[in-house]
Amino acid sequence: MTSMNNVLMNNDLSKIRTILVHNSHPGNIGASARALKNMGLSALYLVAPKEFPSKEAEALASNAQDILATVKVFSTLEEALAGCTWVLGCSARQRKLSLPVFTVREASEKIIEHCTQFSGDIAILYGNEQHGLSNEELAMCAAQIVIPTAAEYASLNLAQAVQIVSYELFCAVFAEKERSEVETTLAEAKAEINFKTNLITQTLPNYEALEEFYRALEKVLIHIQYLDPKKPGQMMTRLKHIFTRAKLDKTELTILRGMLAAMGNGGSSQ
Amino acid sequence: MTSMNNVLMNNDLSKIRTILVHNSHPGNIGASARALKNMGLSALYLVAPKEFPSKEAEALASNAQDILATVKVFSTLEEALAGCTWVLGCSARQRKLSLPVFTVREASEKIIEHCTQFSGDIAILYGNEQHGLSNEELAMCAAQIVIPTAAEYASLNLAQAVQIVSYELFCAVFAEKERSEVETTLAEAKAEINFKTNLITQTLPNYEALEEFYRALEKVLIHIQYLDPKKPGQMMTRLKHIFTRAKLDKTELTILRGMLAAMGNGGSSQ
Repeated sequence: MTSMNNVLMNNDLSKIRTILVHNSHPGNIGASARALKNMGLSALYLVAPKEFPSKEAEALASNAQDILATVKVFSTLEEALAGCTWVLGCSARQRKLSLPVFTVREASEKIIEHCTQFSGDIAILYGNEQHGLSNEELAMCAAQIVIPTAAEYASLNLAQAVQIVSYELFCAVFAEKERSEVETTLAEAKAEINFKTNLITQTLPNYEALEEFYRALEKVLIHIQYLDPKKPGQMMTRLKHIFTRAKLDKTELTILRGMLAAMGNGGSSQ
Repeated sequence: MTSMNNVLMNNDLSKIRTILVHNSHPGNIGASARALKNMGLSALYLVAPKEFPSKEAEALASNAQDILATVKVFSTLEEALAGCTWVLGCSARQRKLSLPVFTVREASEKIIEHCTQFSGDIAILYGNEQHGLSNEELAMCAAQIVIPTAAEYASLNLAQAVQIVSYELFCAVFAEKERSEVETTLAEAKAEINFKTNLITQTLPNYEALEEFYRALEKVLIHIQYLDPKKPGQMMTRLKHIFTRAKLDKTELTILRGMLAAMGNGGSSQ
């Protein structure tokens, strides 16, 4: 995980404002603060919240009290948007406005691109829990973000929406850095994150070692009379398939070889 | 959005069990139910929850009361896993276990692939709010799912973790279907054949059958004195990993079980 986090050292995400407009449940402010911090974001703005500061917000923020402490509160959306060069609204509803609509994944890529290419902050607006963003609020946006959902129940909890958007932004930063970094660093990062145990530490046995193992296995199977050398059928082929699919590493092969040796000894010592 | 929703008509996601293990805050059960329904999932399982049913769960489930009404509650994780052919554990921590580790996006693709190719259910485990999954619980998993987060604060709220995983699963279904739709347009006949091939679900042994095999294997290893029951070390874990990676089918498991039986007999007949 280290390198995934290192990519955030020059924090692109600090330019992204999460703006909750007319929030009515203070718990969602706290849960959003936590969601932001989990994903390396920090700027939380509130426009005319029903209740803030709030004990409930503090409780749900958990270890993201620093985000809560630096929350900026405004009475109008216009004030909250000062200094922004791109404004996007998160909304599930189909609108009659002719805004460009991006899925959250598409939007995240574009936002990170914008961060690295342009000055100014970016705002992502989230509407009130009951009504979402109003048409007037969406009219202040340059694009609409849609989070894909099942048709049956498209209304996400507010903090959950903030979580998904922040998660996609974090992934997009990583993807962006990945592209721009030298190949060795990229390989390192990837290996560390995804395949730490499997690729880095895994040294694969060569073909000869595997064939030797199969011969030893065949011998034991004949010895315990599970394999008839006169009618071998597909047994060895099937067993080879299993171990081929498993992609045995050297340590595992050693364990299996030891097992076969013990079986031989176990048989002859009795 | 229409086509994105249509793709769920033959719902692959119904085979995926979201299992909350030792849940302590009932609100998270409700919030998880909503998160699942938003993303087209439905199977919510609980293992020894502190409080369920609960008013708080109902409140946070919002319009996902149908998911709450069909929640299955078990006293042990083993019971909750019956019938599963793939078990994954969601955990932020680096473990000493040599489990394959997938990011949530990688895991989601693999899960949807598994759904279309293999029989049986898939389980995704989420641990207790304070402690996450225990090492014992993770040892029952074939793979670990990691949600990328900032280093500074990696601990996601439980329901937020469920939301991100479910969102990625939903996206993975869409991506999968999109691929097959493109194929249909390009070469309908060919796609039809591919589609039919995809529908043939390989029959995989379920969790119980595999555990039974591992127990039989352990017994043989102790019998041939390769495994010291007083100092078992990581031997069984390593062996499990080999067979987990191989994704044994039923026939192969039968061959291996037969081998173990012959080893038992082979020892005593001499």
